[in-house]
Amino acid sequence: MDAARFDAWAQDALDQVETALERWVPEDSPAGLGEAMRYAVLGGGKRLRPLLVLAACEAVHGHREAALRAACSVELIHAYSLVHDDMPCMDDDVLRRGKPTVHVAFGEAQAMLAGDAMQALAFEVLTPEEGVDASLQARLCALLARSAGHAGMAGGQAIDLASVGQQLDEAALCDMHRRKTGVLLQASVLMGAACGELDERAWNALAEYGAAIGLAFQVVDDILDVTQDSEVLGKTAGKDQDANKPTYVSVLGLEPARRYAQALRGQAHAALAASGLVDTSRLAQLADKVVERES
Amino acid sequence: MDAARFDAWAQDALDQVETALERWVPEDSPAGLGEAMRYAVLGGGKRLRPLLVLAACEAVHGHREAALRAACSVELIHAYSLVHDDMPCMDDDVLRRGKPTVHVAFGEAQAMLAGDAMQALAFEVLTPEEGVDASLQARLCALLARSAGHAGMAGGQAIDLASVGQQLDEAALCDMHRRKTGVLLQASVLMGAACGELDERAWNALAEYGAAIGLAFQVVDDILDVTQDSEVLGKTAGKDQDANKPTYVSVLGLEPARRYAQALRGQAHAALAASGLVDTSRLAQLADKVVERES
Repeated sequence: MDAARFDAWAQDALDQVETALERWVPEDSPAGLGEAMRYAVLGGGKRLRPLLVLAACEAVHGHREAALRAACSVELIHAYSLVHDDMPCMDDDVLRRGKPTVHVAFGEAQAMLAGDAMQALAFEVLTPEEGVDASLQARLCALLARSAGHAGMAGGQAIDLASVGQQLDEAALCDMHRRKTGVLLQASVLMGAACGELDERAWNALAEYGAAIGLAFQVVDDILDVTQDSEVLGKTAGKDQDANKPTYVSVLGLEPARRYAQALRGQAHAALAASGLVDTSRLAQLADKVVERES
Repeated sequence: MDAARFDAWAQDALDQVETALERWVPEDSPAGLGEAMRYAVLGGGKRLRPLLVLAACEAVHGHREAALRAACSVELIHAYSLVHDDMPCMDDDVLRRGKPTVHVAFGEAQAMLAGDAMQALAFEVLTPEEGVDASLQARLCALLARSAGHAGMAGGQAIDLASVGQQLDEAALCDMHRRKTGVLLQASVLMGAACGELDERAWNALAEYGAAIGLAFQVVDDILDVTQDSEVLGKTAGKDQDANKPTYVSVLGLEPARRYAQALRGQAHAALAASGLVDTSRLAQLADKVVERES
């Protein structure tokens, strides 16, 4: 019953995000650039980040239009990072979301430009001429910029690059993933929360929730990388192992990694309970989805 | 006398921009990322965009701290675009600002990430926790995102890519350059203007001024590409010709291109006169510099 209600909520949210992205990612940009951008971001992906934004916004009874923009902006940042990450000078991957990667379909130069334009578009989506209070626009831009940049996602990718073939201990691995994927997942929660009113205690609790699921997401990713095949994942399986990259599975072992993911789920639930917020059931269910997902 | 006063003003402005960039572009980012970012943006370049921001801010007696942030943010966007533009999948250039390009010095993957992180940092610089009014922060983010993205700089680069070996007429060439370099130069003027109070007439006049010098900048670039050598330019001369790219010189001829640059300078001055603003002497002198520069 609860699961069915969650699924209906998520489907409705995803439809809204897809419709908004359809509208905001331009079809008619010059020289095929819009086409490459749409290929990269429309019609695929789990959309976990947008769901986190919208669920957090619901938990604080926040501004829905602002949250929808925030949801699309984090998805644009996430999608651009995949486009660049897949390029030959980075992970050199040919399959993503079950389709050829952007540089395979459109060429390397167009893939780089499409990624660049998607990052700019994320901030464009956050700063409409009307409909969202200017101070909220600025707050959302601040959260997004800091999570996408040198101290967050881009910094994590730099560590990832430098770590190939290195022995990382659990602390170093954790720091890399916190930056590379955790910070943007956490920012998704906080951007949704920023769309409403909440006290410091609730803000800190949601930050803790976001940190726990951010880490859990990566631990599960590493587990799936060795337990699932490419067809289920829609991307190349086993590639971290092949690339001799350290993962939670290689550092902890498979079973301890599974237990760690469950412990992080527990931390996420505990943080929600400590938040003092009432309507956190969507966020709780999203934490479960992150840990239970099979692709 | 006037020239000496302008030079003193520009030197002071450049010192402030350099000091601010030194502070805001992180030294200690993970895995050498900060080092690559600083290499790309510190200690080089003409800094025309920051000077335009600060001169426009002076013309409207605007908020100096906001303008300094805006100046650094446009320079970060400009510098990141050069890093990506120089990469092997784009222009494949090895020399920039008299130094090896970022991908030559740090590798392609790090160059791509440094560019990505610089774009995010531009929006981080625009959204400080205090010191700048939130609605101005949002306005500056909106202007920057739109000029950097698919309809502006990134779109212009996509047209540029697609135009190699093509016959472009003057209108198509103009559209490409307006997007590729003109829109960000114009945005520099408008971001400076947004830091103060001005009426619609003044705003529109500054937009015209920005459009004229944006175009003039590119016309002069094309002239210098065929009349100067690499040592003077600090980048590879003659490369557009070698790459069989259309330029104002190839479309119009050298002398007509020179006359066109002078006409655009005249348009820029006329726009300033029509603005109703009093303190536009710095902007007028910058228009002269754009047309008279030798590198």
